[in-house]
Formats: sequence, structure tokens, C-alpha cells
Amino acid sequence: MSPAGAGGPRSRFAAASTATLATVRPGGAPHLVPVTFALLPDWGAAGDADAVVFAVDSKPKSTMHLQRLRNVGAEPRVSFLVDRYDDDWTQLWWVRADGVARVLDDRTDADARDTALDALAAKYRQYREVRPAGPVVSTTITRWAEWMYR
Amino acid sequence: MSPAGAGGPRSRFAAASTATLATVRPGGAPHLVPVTFALLPDWGAAGDADAVVFAVDSKPKSTMHLQRLRNVGAEPRVSFLVDRYDDDWTQLWWVRADGVARVLDDRTDADARDTALDALAAKYRQYREVRPAGPVVSTTITRWAEWMYR
Repeated sequence: MSPAGAGGPRSRFAAASTATLATVRPGGAPHLVPVTFALLPDWGAAGDADAVVFAVDSKPKSTMHLQRLRNVGAEPRVSFLVDRYDDDWTQLWWVRADGVARVLDDRTDADARDTALDALAAKYRQYREVRPAGPVVSTTITRWAEWMYR
Repeated sequence: MSPAGAGGPRSRFAAASTATLATVRPGGAPHLVPVTFALLPDWGAAGDADAVVFAVDSKPKSTMHLQRLRNVGAEPRVSFLVDRYDDDWTQLWWVRADGVARVLDDRTDADARDTALDALAAKYRQYREVRPAGPVVSTTITRWAEWMYR
């Protein structure tokens, strides 16, 4: 996969307002939820991989709002998808990022948590107005995939 | 969940151009791909449940284009997500459909396959021009979930 440059798949992924997050439920079924996120290039666990971060924020949640966190605790392998639809199917594309997720610890991962929240605040006005107070999940990306029609 | 009426979650789901399909890889990791689809109310395996159908069409595929079918063969539990993003977060919503997927057999499921392809052609101009020639997957929906900001 090509480097993250303007117009490249990682930059198109990073620029998207939301991604779809897939986790796996403890029973083995897939679980989906859209997330607002930020891509931190070369930031993962060892500082040499991309990371996708998202936070549990103050948007109203259903009673199942922590399912994504429970799932990550039991099965850390997750996937993110960004796609673009167009009635002209030659304009379709998607970018997928598979990785290993981890809920950042408020104390031992405090610096990483701050960096993640700064990246989210840089991307979303709402996070500049109200910094997310909930858990932050960081996913070290292990595989990028992309598709374009042409 | 409320019945499928105008403005209801199922009708908002049905009207979306694409959904994100989550399957689970044989190794247990989640897999994501966007799909063009049709919702057939009260059509599932026993004629009394909603079904979501999609087809392998003639859009160019990568070498992994059948991963979604291999996954369904090993783990039939899948999930579809439709979401709407807006810079005004009070306008956000998503609708999720969890179900059990099955690749329709060209011979024993020929009638169901025709019905599914008719529904896809009714929704997408491209499928009226070129009827999908590949496998058709039908998912009987076992659970609907929705979220709105308000």
C-alpha cells in the first residue's frame, strides 16, 4: 500500500467523518457501530504503525453503549471501513483498516490518551467544545486494504 | 422496534444506497465490505421475517472478492449497518440489522434468487442494465437495532 500522501488511501480514510467499526461479540457474531475517529500515522503500540483512535463521548447512548468495549476486551481484533458511494459506480471506493484494539488506561496510558484526544479535538469541532470523558480505544493497524472501481 | 413505515428505521435502512456488511473470518477476526442491497420485508427463510439480499455483481473485484462468501459459509451470523453522518451531530442516526446469511443455490433456490435479483434491479439502475451473474446471499434478519441522537 502506498504511503499516506494527499489522495492516497490512508489520507482518504483519515479525512472521512466517520468509519464503521466492526468488533466480534463474545458469542462470535459480528457487531457494527459507526464511530468518529482520528488516524495517527506511525503511532501504534511500538511507534511504528498507524493507529486509529476513538473515544466514548457524550453523544446519547443506548443501554448497549459499551458493547464495543466489552467486545474489544474479549477479542481485540477489529476492523474499520470508510467508503464512498456515488450513483456513478465508477466513482466508488472504500478503504479498510484491520488492527488490534486496546482500551487505553486512564493512568498508565495517560500520555497516549491525551495524544488521542488531541487528535480527535483537532478533527472535530464538537470535541474541542466538549472533550470526551469516556474510555479511549486505540487500534494498531496491522493491514490496510483498499478498493476502487477502476 | 416500530413497523416498517415511512420514516421508520426499517424504511430508512431500506432506502440507503449501501450498507456495511460485517462477517467473521474463519480465524475469528471481523471482515467489512460495503454492499449494495435490497430489503425484502417478511420474506426470510420462513416467510415471516425481513431479509436483506445482495449479489456478487460485475463491479471489479480484488483477488479477495469472495472472502465475504467464504466467511458466510463458515459463520452465517452477519450484520449490516446503515448510518447517516451530519456535521450537526443532533442529526446523526444509524440502523443495524443482525441476521443469519445463506448463499442461495442456483438450482434449489432459483425462485428466491429471482425474487432477490428483481428487488435489486428495482432499486438500482445498474442492476436493470446488467443483472448480477454471481452468487446471491440472503440474510434472515433476527434483530433490528437503531440509534438516533435525540
